[in-house]
Amino acid sequence: VRRFVVIGQTATASGDFSLEDLPSTSGRLDVLLRCVRAALLVSHGLRRDTVVYLVLLGGPLAPRTVRVDGAIATYVRPDERSLAGLVRKVLATPRAGRDAGGPAFTPMPHGFAIAEGGLELVLPDLGSFTPYLLDENAPDIRAAPLALEDPVFFLGDHVGLDDATRARLASAGAVSLSVGPVSVHAYDVVAIVANELDRRAPTVAL
Amino acid sequence: VRRFVVIGQTATASGDFSLEDLPSTSGRLDVLLRCVRAALLVSHGLRRDTVVYLVLLGGPLAPRTVRVDGAIATYVRPDERSLAGLVRKVLATPRAGRDAGGPAFTPMPHGFAIAEGGLELVLPDLGSFTPYLLDENAPDIRAAPLALEDPVFFLGDHVGLDDATRARLASAGAVSLSVGPVSVHAYDVVAIVANELDRRAPTVAL
Repeated sequence: VRRFVVIGQTATASGDFSLEDLPSTSGRLDVLLRCVRAALLVSHGLRRDTVVYLVLLGGPLAPRTVRVDGAIATYVRPDERSLAGLVRKVLATPRAGRDAGGPAFTPMPHGFAIAEGGLELVLPDLGSFTPYLLDENAPDIRAAPLALEDPVFFLGDHVGLDDATRARLASAGAVSLSVGPVSVHAYDVVAIVANELDRRAPTVAL
Repeated sequence: VRRFVVIGQTATASGDFSLEDLPSTSGRLDVLLRCVRAALLVSHGLRRDTVVYLVLLGGPLAPRTVRVDGAIATYVRPDERSLAGLVRKVLATPRAGRDAGGPAFTPMPHGFAIAEGGLELVLPDLGSFTPYLLDENAPDIRAAPLALEDPVFFLGDHVGLDDATRARLASAGAVSLSVGPVSVHAYDVVAIVANELDRRAPTVAL
């Protein structure tokens, strides 16, 4: 299984944004939605072996994390507005308490799930994994060995990653990799990484 | 200069689509808008050495072609709705006649231009160029020599390319290339090709 964890420093964790002005009203949640699209959708279907986590650190309900599991996802379409509508419904759920020891992620319709926290809930949810941090000026992913069984790619949004997140990922053993000499947007990074993985072990698309 | 020519079999050539339901009302112009984004926008600016042509073959005003020149483009933002608004204004221009021998493309604000025709007007506008056709099951772009001075990449939308277009590109000497073993959406193809070009000769971004 391939997994992507996108950390949105400003992306809103509440569902009160406007579909008519997504970038301004959602703290640039649109950036993260494009990452979901790039990770999950291919020409004739959906990558069933890919999971995306959106860590939402903006707005009054933050931190929250939305998980989209390609294995069971439905109604995921490439246009931003439709994807924003799906995620808005998930985020419209009131912030919930959690039983100690219970699962962090609450299942929602269409293969989505939500957790009331950030990276500290994502890491245990990943189980066994090999972490990579997608970053500028890091060694080239093309030349790097990749764990194809359980790679997890962490990346920031348009703002980048804060020092605390970097420290946490470093202590989890994350290997830094770049996708080339030009710094591109997070969703293009996801598309390029997915392509690199496809060349090493083609994805399951259905 | 890098150039991308995206051929939209159903994408509308008229500006009467709805921003609230772009995929259904625009003949999937949204696919082509995402290609513009992927070709032009990078993390800290815009690729000044890239030009995108959208050949619009859908709707009552077709064929028309919209050209976006990165060298002079302004107000190009990554969210679909804002990009759709820019293109809608260009397409709202009434279909115009053209002086015989005059330029095919009429300049519009923000680095856009419009021509009242399709591929037959794009090819002369390209001047000197080396054509590539991005296609499934073709040789891998990574292993191919690329003309870095004046490459032009032709690609289809979600429908693919019709036989007449393929024949025309073949007679122009287009070399078919693929971006890997999994068939991905047109805009992800553009992002992957731009990344391949960046690795061979980094883009000019400002």
